[in-house]
Amino acid sequence: MAKELVFGHQNPDTDAISAAIEYSYLQNQLGYDTEAVALGEPNKETEFVLNYFHQEMPRVVHNVHDEVDAVMLVDHNEKQQSAPDIDQVTVTHVVDHHRIANFQTSAPLYYRAEPVGCVSTVVWKLYHEHQIEIPKKIAGLMVSAIISDTLLLKSPTTTDTDRQAVVEAAQIAGIDYEAYGLEMLKAGADISDQTAAELIDADAKSFEMGGNQFRIAQINVVDLSAALKRQAEFETAMAQSCQANSYNLFLLAITNVLDSDTTVLVSGPEALTAKVEVAFGKKLDQGQLSLPGVVSRKKQIVPPLQAQF
Amino acid sequence: MAKELVFGHQNPDTDAISAAIEYSYLQNQLGYDTEAVALGEPNKETEFVLNYFHQEMPRVVHNVHDEVDAVMLVDHNEKQQSAPDIDQVTVTHVVDHHRIANFQTSAPLYYRAEPVGCVSTVVWKLYHEHQIEIPKKIAGLMVSAIISDTLLLKSPTTTDTDRQAVVEAAQIAGIDYEAYGLEMLKAGADISDQTAAELIDADAKSFEMGGNQFRIAQINVVDLSAALKRQAEFETAMAQSCQANSYNLFLLAITNVLDSDTTVLVSGPEALTAKVEVAFGKKLDQGQLSLPGVVSRKKQIVPPLQAQF
Repeated sequence: MAKELVFGHQNPDTDAISAAIEYSYLQNQLGYDTEAVALGEPNKETEFVLNYFHQEMPRVVHNVHDEVDAVMLVDHNEKQQSAPDIDQVTVTHVVDHHRIANFQTSAPLYYRAEPVGCVSTVVWKLYHEHQIEIPKKIAGLMVSAIISDTLLLKSPTTTDTDRQAVVEAAQIAGIDYEAYGLEMLKAGADISDQTAAELIDADAKSFEMGGNQFRIAQINVVDLSAALKRQAEFETAMAQSCQANSYNLFLLAITNVLDSDTTVLVSGPEALTAKVEVAFGKKLDQGQLSLPGVVSRKKQIVPPLQAQF
Repeated sequence: MAKELVFGHQNPDTDAISAAIEYSYLQNQLGYDTEAVALGEPNKETEFVLNYFHQEMPRVVHNVHDEVDAVMLVDHNEKQQSAPDIDQVTVTHVVDHHRIANFQTSAPLYYRAEPVGCVSTVVWKLYHEHQIEIPKKIAGLMVSAIISDTLLLKSPTTTDTDRQAVVEAAQIAGIDYEAYGLEMLKAGADISDQTAAELIDADAKSFEMGGNQFRIAQINVVDLSAALKRQAEFETAMAQSCQANSYNLFLLAITNVLDSDTTVLVSGPEALTAKVEVAFGKKLDQGQLSLPGVVSRKKQIVPPLQAQF
């Protein structure tokens, strides 16, 4: 069987990198020949996780068709979030927890998506279904990914299955998931030594909405007011990114992971930012859209925008 | 929980109708409130199956958004094969065994696809995963659907999982699947009392390829030469259907279910039929493209056309 690469989305977060490692291990146990790779460097949180569990960082690749004919995707399906040459390979498997869009195949494939908080929860289910034992290190990655995606099980995307997976995987990994999770989130939320340009690109995704190219970035912090002191810096970086990449609109969601609140900064023409205000039923105040209780880009930020645009 | 409708594709075959019944029963056991419906009348084979297992035919519906806000799809995902108002409802679940195309959601959903011969095989796996007992009648539908889609496990789409599902389901249903399957296929293959227009519409699917609208129909027969005596009749019906529905090309695959051979008739402009010849590496002979060993539209007819167009 020819080798396949397994990878998550561009600008990988902890879930994208962990799920690729978890799913590649599972598929290799089932007889496939796969290698987990990443479409970008790990962020601080993911670095903390990999160090903690003595897990090697997957090789970073920039395109895939030079190496393989077939790939498996985790944690994404939309073309614009995938390898730039994704159209030149066959996607044989997808494991995801997002909407399906801009995704098309010419042949039947394995596709497994569930509306849960984290794709690692779906992979956890797959280990059970195939009766493959979860190694301690893999269990640690699963806990990390689920806590990262659900912000310690507080995000509205969290399901009972995510909770069940965290509890079971934490037992296998031999960790107290709450204490470990807080430490991990804090490690990822220290943004003091990163430039605004780095921060708005670290966990950013592109969306096409009503013919517009949207860029929606999210930063997790533990001190929202400290982060908002850098507002002017972020706005300059967002405007520059729009120009350089032809985005019509850039939204930056700054999320306080301890309080579960988000403040959104917006960069784009008046006609579009006005529609963003309508989407969230709120006016920009000093360039800030304060969204209490909002922590999930997928569930609380993208859907109202999509409904509006 | 609001009621949802479960249905297969337009021009339903035995798999589309059986899988809707099977999956609706499963989901109801799991706490959903669903009703299996169909997007068209049953064909002869399906009528035989429903009579044999004393299963009531699902209600035929022409659109869905007047009744429900959310639906579950089986055996298809492409918009043009679904309810005409599919864009006006939310798709919460898909169980399928086809490629993914022209399918898009705004929210995460349950999506379960596997490249197996029949979607009822995937549903059979789901019963096992959820540890729901398969009722005798449902087992009979599963056997029927798998035999129908794989032409008695002879199609190249057949996998070991399909074989395993048929054997187990036949035990539950208390039938000899080979004897029963042959009887069922013959019941479906009697085309003597149907008009050409009816026959080319009974199991027909639309595909968009390279900007062209293709219609690809399949008829199962037990006597290929008898069917080909009606070639002129079929060609007239195909040309009329192209005109009435703005199809650029109509392909009719007439498959001998006993010998596993197919003869294709083509209706469309010279420029396109010439490309069909290239796709299959064969010239039309008296308007017929003879394809020995070909039985699967999905695996042996659609892919070469897609590669060509």
